[in-house]
Amino acid sequence: MDARLTIALDAMGGDKAPQMVIDGADIARIRYPSVSFLLFGDEQRLAPLLDAKPRLKAACTVVHAEEVVTGDAKPSVALRTGRRSSMRLAIEAVREGQAAGVVSAGNTGALMAMSVVVLRTLAGISRPAIASFFPTRRGETVMLDLGANIECDVDNLVQFAVMGEVFARTVLGLQQPTIGLLNVGAEELKGHEELRLAAARLRASSLPIQFHGFVEGDDIGAGTVDVVVTDGFTGNIALKTAEGTAKLYAEFLRGAFRASWLAQLGYLLARRGLNKVRKRTDPRRYNGAMFLGVNGIVVKSHGGTDGFGFANAVGVAVDMAANRINDKIRDELAGLGATPANSQAATG
Amino acid sequence: MDARLTIALDAMGGDKAPQMVIDGADIARIRYPSVSFLLFGDEQRLAPLLDAKPRLKAACTVVHAEEVVTGDAKPSVALRTGRRSSMRLAIEAVREGQAAGVVSAGNTGALMAMSVVVLRTLAGISRPAIASFFPTRRGETVMLDLGANIECDVDNLVQFAVMGEVFARTVLGLQQPTIGLLNVGAEELKGHEELRLAAARLRASSLPIQFHGFVEGDDIGAGTVDVVVTDGFTGNIALKTAEGTAKLYAEFLRGAFRASWLAQLGYLLARRGLNKVRKRTDPRRYNGAMFLGVNGIVVKSHGGTDGFGFANAVGVAVDMAANRINDKIRDELAGLGATPANSQAATG
Repeated sequence: MDARLTIALDAMGGDKAPQMVIDGADIARIRYPSVSFLLFGDEQRLAPLLDAKPRLKAACTVVHAEEVVTGDAKPSVALRTGRRSSMRLAIEAVREGQAAGVVSAGNTGALMAMSVVVLRTLAGISRPAIASFFPTRRGETVMLDLGANIECDVDNLVQFAVMGEVFARTVLGLQQPTIGLLNVGAEELKGHEELRLAAARLRASSLPIQFHGFVEGDDIGAGTVDVVVTDGFTGNIALKTAEGTAKLYAEFLRGAFRASWLAQLGYLLARRGLNKVRKRTDPRRYNGAMFLGVNGIVVKSHGGTDGFGFANAVGVAVDMAANRINDKIRDELAGLGATPANSQAATG
Repeated sequence: MDARLTIALDAMGGDKAPQMVIDGADIARIRYPSVSFLLFGDEQRLAPLLDAKPRLKAACTVVHAEEVVTGDAKPSVALRTGRRSSMRLAIEAVREGQAAGVVSAGNTGALMAMSVVVLRTLAGISRPAIASFFPTRRGETVMLDLGANIECDVDNLVQFAVMGEVFARTVLGLQQPTIGLLNVGAEELKGHEELRLAAARLRASSLPIQFHGFVEGDDIGAGTVDVVVTDGFTGNIALKTAEGTAKLYAEFLRGAFRASWLAQLGYLLARRGLNKVRKRTDPRRYNGAMFLGVNGIVVKSHGGTDGFGFANAVGVAVDMAANRINDKIRDELAGLGATPANSQAATG
């Protein structure tokens, strides 16, 4: 990072807010010394927390917000009644150019709805998608959509592929990221009609996209492609199934090491490597879901995370801003307009 | 098991068939001494394999089949051209009452298509589902459909719930198995229309079903419910994502224990507990997917499994036959006919 960046933080979002947000900002401050923060929330609750961290306080400007969007508020209700909420004001700071991006650990549906209303979508994107990283054998894979859109049409899927590709190229720095469409088999005839049409469109595309074809659920962990594209229903199920499986495995392991004093000693001897595994699979490391397609940088942190996890979500926003991701998606989408939309010819 | 059972085996299905099938049958023979086998396949290839295992040979009758359904054959093609295949003849043995069930590690789509054509579906079931076990924190969960039906309507989902419930009660021996519908959130308003209508129908049902409501991807590993019901697209993605995640985790762990000689020693000390984890998560232990809703017992083994895995699939067929699962599904479905189909009233 060369230039100074300001990131807006919804200080009141998340199970353990505002303390967790303050802790996270403090970790992020050390990692990104040139970043400053706009903190939106209850001034009276934030003041003592910041007084305890004078260096963070120096990097922060507090903007009072008297309302909080609750975790169970319906997006439509939050939109109507949350105009003075910390979440809404933090998003508006991005629209007003006061912040380069916003991070919130609050209600996902409300954050997406407010982001779209306040910031709009990028030209050429009908619906934004939620994207996040997954650990894989080869490193990391980006998957989208993870739950913003329960049903997706062919256009949505193609747009997700473009956004994922640009993200992998610019933020992850991959020269030629490969893209896969999540399906129940690799053969061309498998799956829903929408998937087959989207695949045909991506194959025929004149974009510089390395379309791998269909991938299956086990290709996510194998790292078969750099970007996995799917609808929000399937993506959400896959994300949570993977999280649940990792959790189960970790629990089984803990049991194994507690089984006897010999096993406990074994754990101590192998601790170094085991800690590496824990780090590699730590969900906090992958915290920070990006709302790709919104005309502004919006990152959703897991609501139950701690300061370490929240700092990682701030890092995602910083990376996206520093790499000017939205300018690049815009450029690529302009190219998509020139693509022959010959999906029917290719699949008929 | 009291009575003698005969199970038909497709000796030619699977990557390492017929040797793998013979190995599996030999393990199953020891586990189930009262079971005998009808082996369908190439007599000339099977004869020397059986000669090497005289005790298995005594429990087997070989039925020559000159054709084999290949792994990449389309179901429609297999149906037309595979009339003299080992798979088809093995299924026909169930229809003719010569076998209580059939196990094949061959082409899944062909096996399902042939099963439906030869055996038909149970009265009241429009489409069969593929069901299998998952390891969970609490023990085991049954999930269906894992890929037979890419798109499912409300009737299909309700029927899957009934079949899963009967299975959990009769084969797993659970008194009051709980049923969950896989969705992207637990709230009533989440997900596809079909899911909401199916939930309303199950809630209003007069069946003795313990309907838990919606569950999410991480509830699978957590064992929140005994039976997870979903469409075949989502189920297949969830199954393979879980498999891929477990594989990734296991690979990370192997790396950790190989990192140093201290870590290797640590592994040796903790080996006993770690072997237990390996056993609990061994995919071969969960091998044997049931085609529930077919009017006859059909079990699909993973194509890449070994004799140990195939023997487990045979065990699934034996359990289903011994528990007369299809008679019980039939009884429950008769009750379903008497259910007020007030899904509209409940969700309108």
